[in-house]
Amino acid sequence: MNPTKVKVYNFNAGPAMLPPPVMEQAQREFLDYMGTGMSIMEMSHRGYHFDEVIASAEKVLRELLSIPENYSVIFYPGGATLQFSAVPLNLLRKGETADFAITGVWANKAEQEAKKLGFHTNIIYDDKPNHYTLVPNLSDSNISANAKYLHITSNNTIYGTRYRTLPKIKKVPVVADMTSDLLSRKINVSDFGIIFAGAQKNIGPSGLTIVIARNDLIEGDKDPMPVILNYSTMAKNKSLYNTPPTYSIYIAKLVFDWCKRMGGVEALEDINENKAMTLYSFLDRSRLYTCPVKGDHRSSMNVVFHLKDKSLEKEFTFSSEKRGLHGLPGHRDAGGFRASIYNAMPMEGVEALIEFLKEFENKH
Amino acid sequence: MNPTKVKVYNFNAGPAMLPPPVMEQAQREFLDYMGTGMSIMEMSHRGYHFDEVIASAEKVLRELLSIPENYSVIFYPGGATLQFSAVPLNLLRKGETADFAITGVWANKAEQEAKKLGFHTNIIYDDKPNHYTLVPNLSDSNISANAKYLHITSNNTIYGTRYRTLPKIKKVPVVADMTSDLLSRKINVSDFGIIFAGAQKNIGPSGLTIVIARNDLIEGDKDPMPVILNYSTMAKNKSLYNTPPTYSIYIAKLVFDWCKRMGGVEALEDINENKAMTLYSFLDRSRLYTCPVKGDHRSSMNVVFHLKDKSLEKEFTFSSEKRGLHGLPGHRDAGGFRASIYNAMPMEGVEALIEFLKEFENKH
Repeated sequence: MNPTKVKVYNFNAGPAMLPPPVMEQAQREFLDYMGTGMSIMEMSHRGYHFDEVIASAEKVLRELLSIPENYSVIFYPGGATLQFSAVPLNLLRKGETADFAITGVWANKAEQEAKKLGFHTNIIYDDKPNHYTLVPNLSDSNISANAKYLHITSNNTIYGTRYRTLPKIKKVPVVADMTSDLLSRKINVSDFGIIFAGAQKNIGPSGLTIVIARNDLIEGDKDPMPVILNYSTMAKNKSLYNTPPTYSIYIAKLVFDWCKRMGGVEALEDINENKAMTLYSFLDRSRLYTCPVKGDHRSSMNVVFHLKDKSLEKEFTFSSEKRGLHGLPGHRDAGGFRASIYNAMPMEGVEALIEFLKEFENKH
Repeated sequence: MNPTKVKVYNFNAGPAMLPPPVMEQAQREFLDYMGTGMSIMEMSHRGYHFDEVIASAEKVLRELLSIPENYSVIFYPGGATLQFSAVPLNLLRKGETADFAITGVWANKAEQEAKKLGFHTNIIYDDKPNHYTLVPNLSDSNISANAKYLHITSNNTIYGTRYRTLPKIKKVPVVADMTSDLLSRKINVSDFGIIFAGAQKNIGPSGLTIVIARNDLIEGDKDPMPVILNYSTMAKNKSLYNTPPTYSIYIAKLVFDWCKRMGGVEALEDINENKAMTLYSFLDRSRLYTCPVKGDHRSSMNVVFHLKDKSLEKEFTFSSEKRGLHGLPGHRDAGGFRASIYNAMPMEGVEALIEFLKEFENKH
């Protein structure tokens, strides 16, 4: 509750803050889309208006990420976990093998899922001994002889780490789970075979996942799999094999338009780096706070920090909430605190957080 | 476009009209849920507010349908098509068999999917020769000796048919795809093993599916399957194994609350029967219109009709749209026209449609 109407900043890790102009437009159009007297939520996925929405969403996303023509864009229901199953089912045949770089819970879950579905997995890197505070430098020399692809998590939401430099691998396609940093920084799509991202960080509501897939990888024979998981079927049907999550795709379209108005991914990356640098600099200079992640391993999306005096954690949570700074407690697997500062979080939010952090430090 | 601001009625088959009070509340709360200064769309799926939403959604749904305690309620991402895969993967082991009653495209797709995934299927009824205008009377004597379950589609959205009396089978559990009639009429949940329903008709936005599963059927050993498809994992995790489609669940909760305020499923059924009867009576008495479906086979949710003079179809579509009556053209597999009159469609909408139908008839 916010009875005193302080300015609220939402640092949730996901579902997360969306750009205020997007939310305001969605609210305005909620009951009456384009003067039709109906909500876009109530319209057919095969009608004129939704056609425009999904076509424009794909077009602007392709522009924002310079997605080459030999890649398909698929709007998927569900989250990244569904893709942990879909990727091996689409890219491997019985008895084949994939490489995994384990930089946290999500890569670990992806590896477990591929193994459970009957495929072979090689763990070429596992940062568990370092409590997932480091990401590796991967090159062709790391890839197993029999691997069909390499799976990585580009940004680790829970631990606040990321690949500052994304791997460039020639031997095999790279599959990247970019759930928490797609659209936050420049990437070279051609360096990847499959990119997927759950929407609930930088894209839109939960229950939608963006898949970007190189066409030659998803064509050809596969062992039987649930039809919705078949990338080729979904791509050929332009994400309309069955009824897609239409409203979530509409919000994603508004977010993509907003990204473009902001100057595109390059401009957003500058803002994001500036926000993260400002926050990390403060934390590094403070007496009360400490970051478990160092230097180049640090994420610009999820800033994880601890209180040196753990007995203050409850008070910290209570006071920050009272100040309108929400969602700061860390993930249960990592503890401490975490400020998720996705594209939608303005510099003013980071400044408000730093002001609070300073005051709390001065008090203790 | 609706420049003259005529009153609009949305007869889309799904995504479909939602109750106006639900949409108005959702719009009011869109930017500021419960005074938090955040949208429910932007909140953590593990936070206090969403906890309340999903718990209340389940509670009210259980009340509305009198769901017994030995059944789990699961909020699933995606649509019914994902369940066409999930049901056989959860209920059958390799080499086992299920029965299917084919009353339209969706039952057919479900049967094809089970077969493709390596299971045996028996088609115990197929209405294709009658162009899917009839539904069977099924009893234990129809069930194959080796069947583990029977799959039916309770209401056939495309063809406008339904089981007026739902089958009561003792030999095997009945799996019912109730996508287009769940919550529109009384059912006895105990007569079914699994019920599932894509949300986009009577429940909420597309990209959400409700699964109601008898616990003894979903426990126990299964062959490996994509983790999200595992009913037991999803049920044990209270639909929060991963990030669920939170906003869609929020809308569903508002719709369930509205159903309760309307007097529950029994009251809605009375209204629905009255709406359907009024429309069918008019069509049966008319000179220009004809219904391919007769008597007890007729759906109360999707009223399919044709123009006896097919050359008038284009003019009919154009004139109806101009009058604010949207979504009337039939499915491409059935042709003609279809008025989908789900729970949210008021009697006034049906009356406005009849008024237009009369005028159009008088003109020709």
